[in-house]
Amino acid sequence: METSSLLKQIEFIKEVDKLKYILRKTKLFNSDRNENDAEHSWHLSLMAIILAGHANSDIDLLRVVKMLLIHDIVEIDAGDTFIYDAQKNHTNTDEERLAANRIFGLLPEGQATELIAIWEEFEEGQTHEAKFARAMDRLEPLLQNTSNNGGTWAEFGVSYEKVYAKKQVIQQGSESIWQYAEQLINDSVEKGILKK
Amino acid sequence: METSSLLKQIEFIKEVDKLKYILRKTKLFNSDRNENDAEHSWHLSLMAIILAGHANSDIDLLRVVKMLLIHDIVEIDAGDTFIYDAQKNHTNTDEERLAANRIFGLLPEGQATELIAIWEEFEEGQTHEAKFARAMDRLEPLLQNTSNNGGTWAEFGVSYEKVYAKKQVIQQGSESIWQYAEQLINDSVEKGILKK
Repeated sequence: METSSLLKQIEFIKEVDKLKYILRKTKLFNSDRNENDAEHSWHLSLMAIILAGHANSDIDLLRVVKMLLIHDIVEIDAGDTFIYDAQKNHTNTDEERLAANRIFGLLPEGQATELIAIWEEFEEGQTHEAKFARAMDRLEPLLQNTSNNGGTWAEFGVSYEKVYAKKQVIQQGSESIWQYAEQLINDSVEKGILKK
Repeated sequence: METSSLLKQIEFIKEVDKLKYILRKTKLFNSDRNENDAEHSWHLSLMAIILAGHANSDIDLLRVVKMLLIHDIVEIDAGDTFIYDAQKNHTNTDEERLAANRIFGLLPEGQATELIAIWEEFEEGQTHEAKFARAMDRLEPLLQNTSNNGGTWAEFGVSYEKVYAKKQVIQQGSESIWQYAEQLINDSVEKGILKK
């Protein structure tokens, strides 16, 4: 690869540092400290590696990990949208598309095209890889909220029905993880940390 | 995979959340906020994906990314050791080995064995994958320190010679990235942010 490619790649590497400042609504495990998008992306990527054996279908694990490492980078420009926010569509806003073009556009052309395609694949959620990646994205905050006495469910008054509907996406990526997740949701109702 | 495997994996996923509290000496880009190990691991993994085309040899990129996602997990128990600390050996302490056994040991047996082997491979730095992964680990703080007016070099009075010796490891992973890094080190001396 030539020097001009490397210089573009270094600019991208510097730019994405900003993901460490984008705070999510959810808190770390057993904590009241908000998680940032870089920490979240690390955790999901590692979860995918650990849990890959539970995927419903054969998956290209490297592609899943690429998706998870980059899936929130658009939030550097577009900001984090809370998944239970009814006012604002969580994904695929024009703002996010502009952000993808600007940030991935810092890279050499072929690489920019590749990463935008991977980001779109995640957003569309149709391939086996995207389904498994999205299962990870739904599982982590479920684990966090149950460790935090209801976490954002309690804080923002999110109902069992809404949680169940959002989390059911896990089933498309992994039946066995969904079984576990469904149990965790039902247990949360029993414990009174999620209201039916 | 069975439920008992999944439960062990979930315990591991919860435990490694602690990596988000382990602070490094180096600061974020153009910042005085310390980077934590989870953010650092995310950044290196993404860098490996972006920069893989510069590797000296064909590499198994998924293996490199696995290494980078887990390479600092032992610091949950053993703490971060500053790379220029002359008192304490940076790697492979007994403490880190105990930590690897305890933390990866939370996983199902086969997976624990696999991840300990990958961690050891990174520490030994002999394979193409480990060499490239280590190049990423040396490159990020170089970029950070140059963005921070010398950063930890200035803060802890680290000399050009020590920096040069530590960074030269990059060359084993990528000649072209090393060329860029060497130039950056020399520029830092000219700018007066690194003392010869």
